Amino acid sequence: MSSLRVNGDRLWKSLADMARIGATHKGGVCRLALSSEDQQAREVLANWCQDLGMEVRYDAMGNQFARYPGKTTDTKPILIGSHLDSQPTGGKYDGVLGVLAGLEVIRTISEAGHQPDHPIELVNWTNEEGARFAPAMIGSGVFAGAFELNVAHGIIDEHGTSIKEALETIGHLGPEKSPIDYHASLELHIEQGPVLEQSGKSVGVVTGVQGMRWYECRVMGKAAHAGTTPMNMRQDPVRLATELIQQCYELIAEGPEAKITFGTLKAEPGSINTVPDLVTFNIDIRHPDAARLNALDEALKSMIVALDLEANRVELNEIWHSAPVSFHPECIKTVDKACEVLELPALKIMSGAGHDAVYLSRVMPTGMIFIPCQDGLSHNEAESIEKEHAIDGANVLLQAVLQLDRQPDI
Amino acid sequence: MSSLRVNGDRLWKSLADMARIGATHKGGVCRLALSSEDQQAREVLANWCQDLGMEVRYDAMGNQFARYPGKTTDTKPILIGSHLDSQPTGGKYDGVLGVLAGLEVIRTISEAGHQPDHPIELVNWTNEEGARFAPAMIGSGVFAGAFELNVAHGIIDEHGTSIKEALETIGHLGPEKSPIDYHASLELHIEQGPVLEQSGKSVGVVTGVQGMRWYECRVMGKAAHAGTTPMNMRQDPVRLATELIQQCYELIAEGPEAKITFGTLKAEPGSINTVPDLVTFNIDIRHPDAARLNALDEALKSMIVALDLEANRVELNEIWHSAPVSFHPECIKTVDKACEVLELPALKIMSGAGHDAVYLSRVMPTGMIFIPCQDGLSHNEAESIEKEHAIDGANVLLQAVLQLDRQPDI
Repeated sequence: MSSLRVNGDRLWKSLADMARIGATHKGGVCRLALSSEDQQAREVLANWCQDLGMEVRYDAMGNQFARYPGKTTDTKPILIGSHLDSQPTGGKYDGVLGVLAGLEVIRTISEAGHQPDHPIELVNWTNEEGARFAPAMIGSGVFAGAFELNVAHGIIDEHGTSIKEALETIGHLGPEKSPIDYHASLELHIEQGPVLEQSGKSVGVVTGVQGMRWYECRVMGKAAHAGTTPMNMRQDPVRLATELIQQCYELIAEGPEAKITFGTLKAEPGSINTVPDLVTFNIDIRHPDAARLNALDEALKSMIVALDLEANRVELNEIWHSAPVSFHPECIKTVDKACEVLELPALKIMSGAGHDAVYLSRVMPTGMIFIPCQDGLSHNEAESIEKEHAIDGANVLLQAVLQLDRQPDI
Repeated sequence: MSSLRVNGDRLWKSLADMARIGATHKGGVCRLALSSEDQQAREVLANWCQDLGMEVRYDAMGNQFARYPGKTTDTKPILIGSHLDSQPTGGKYDGVLGVLAGLEVIRTISEAGHQPDHPIELVNWTNEEGARFAPAMIGSGVFAGAFELNVAHGIIDEHGTSIKEALETIGHLGPEKSPIDYHASLELHIEQGPVLEQSGKSVGVVTGVQGMRWYECRVMGKAAHAGTTPMNMRQDPVRLATELIQQCYELIAEGPEAKITFGTLKAEPGSINTVPDLVTFNIDIRHPDAARLNALDEALKSMIVALDLEANRVELNEIWHSAPVSFHPECIKTVDKACEVLELPALKIMSGAGHDAVYLSRVMPTGMIFIPCQDGLSHNEAESIEKEHAIDGANVLLQAVLQLDRQPDI
């Protein structure tokens, strides 16, 4: 079956059809999780699956599964897919590509009259984005046991609607949690960063996902009149905060793999001729290596101790933490081999962003495939990919699924 | 008359009575310019002046004048006073002390049966704070010819009410601009900074007002995913802005007289896992010396050229500029001598904040007297002064007025 190829035009048309649901006038989509737009997208997907004779089911988190049967019923299924929900001003490919390339793989296998050893399950995870209901990846998180079902059901959006209520409204509240007994899982996704594009490679063989730590930092000072307070009598939080931020960049300079971001930064009360009494900012630190990430955390804390001489002006709180993930060696090898078979230039890459595959990797052998996106842009209506790359990615997914199917157990 | 002293209890009671108008529950006042609270304060002042037989008049900016007659009508009046309007959450003494100490000086002179050579005019300037109508000091500014009357009349508050309409509403729109033919002017004010308090001196002999430059700075970058964009592929405006701010503090470190403040600071769009595309902040630079202030401006601009390698990421716009002011040597000498006569420990001091006296100094010999305020706190409901200092300040004003009165011309 190594000569089997997806139908690129059919895949590209499915992406365009799906992009009409919740389309924004700037060329992106707004398809918040469990909204009526998301419901429409789910129903379109269900129809496409049913056209292939696949049975569609929903679990208690509304995760949508469609099974293409294998030769026997006692083999574990191979799981492929991603998510159809989007950011409020999101793009047409983030998540969607993984779901529709998965569908295209099954369409191709079905059209070829091939019957795999293992069933192949297509999945559309609920609320990957976390834009309507925080946190992100809650559907795959509950599936993999990272969150309790009843806790997840109780999470509310900004209007007070719970996930459970939203699932009932669109009729996708399934009876129970899904079983997690799978042969392996693969997720195709756009990179959402510029590395592949700049490398000139058309496919990324994802080896894992960076670890990350999120902090909230508050630097306290004393409000004072800008004209009347001599510099040496001030407790200026801007001075301390900017020094701290500059030193943070120095910390990170040690290696190309570490990343630090100050996505928010604000001085209060915010009057031009008043020394602020508070500067707040968030810190996002990422590293693919758990030990190095911990070392950065330690270094950050030591630096604050050294800078905050009175030990009462800087408050640092960790608000989220996700350990680095290494994908399963067999899955990485399989994806790598698929690129080889297809003669596609591939790059081993760590994912900087979180994905449903992070949670799946806790309960089954998991791998990911990336394709480039223009300028690394994502979570943006201008998100754009090359048709050729979408087809390459789908063919890698197809070949990797066929190879996994030939392996009795991983 | 060098043995004449104000009635401290009467002054203190007037301050307390005035503080009831627009009193806030936190112990401050809210008496925005030309509000009904300001109207009440103006009418109370008018009544107190009329009780002394003084005639009260309003000019076309609503500036309130009350004249105590001199021996002849052909001598130029001495002008004393300040303002009764406040910040939205202001204190009980900022401005008010200067007006009511001026009143107390006239009450004392009147009570002693003394008739000065020059008329003494008490003034309450309209909208000194600039909190309701920007810019600040618009009443004294029009008086001194810094602004056109019709431009000032057209300035609107946040509800679209113009200064002229507000003056008509409270009935204080006078028929014409005031003449500016005065012998000299003196303004007593709280320091609004910590210098006097820390020096242990009870009176400040104000030699002038610092120059200041206000800038708006925009540092541009490129929004990018915090997890997927390597550090060396970023255009991170936080990195550049914090470096620039740190270098600004270095610039200022050269001497004790220079001051720099970053009162506002904000990163946009402000999402924890997105590299911002814009950081904006204001810069407030002050220096008592015009040449040094200009040198700081030059150094700031050179630094930006050196840091902004692509010459397109940093935008610096000057939004306001006020040159340093030196008060009249005779007025400074007179205040200094008054402190000597009263045996009060005095400190020569530059004002860090702007005052109506800055505009007055353009059109007549002008001086200022400071007294300490607790912790240098002002523009704050917790603003507080010692009764003793208020009395000292009023006595210095009294003695200085009496001395100026004896000088035929300055």
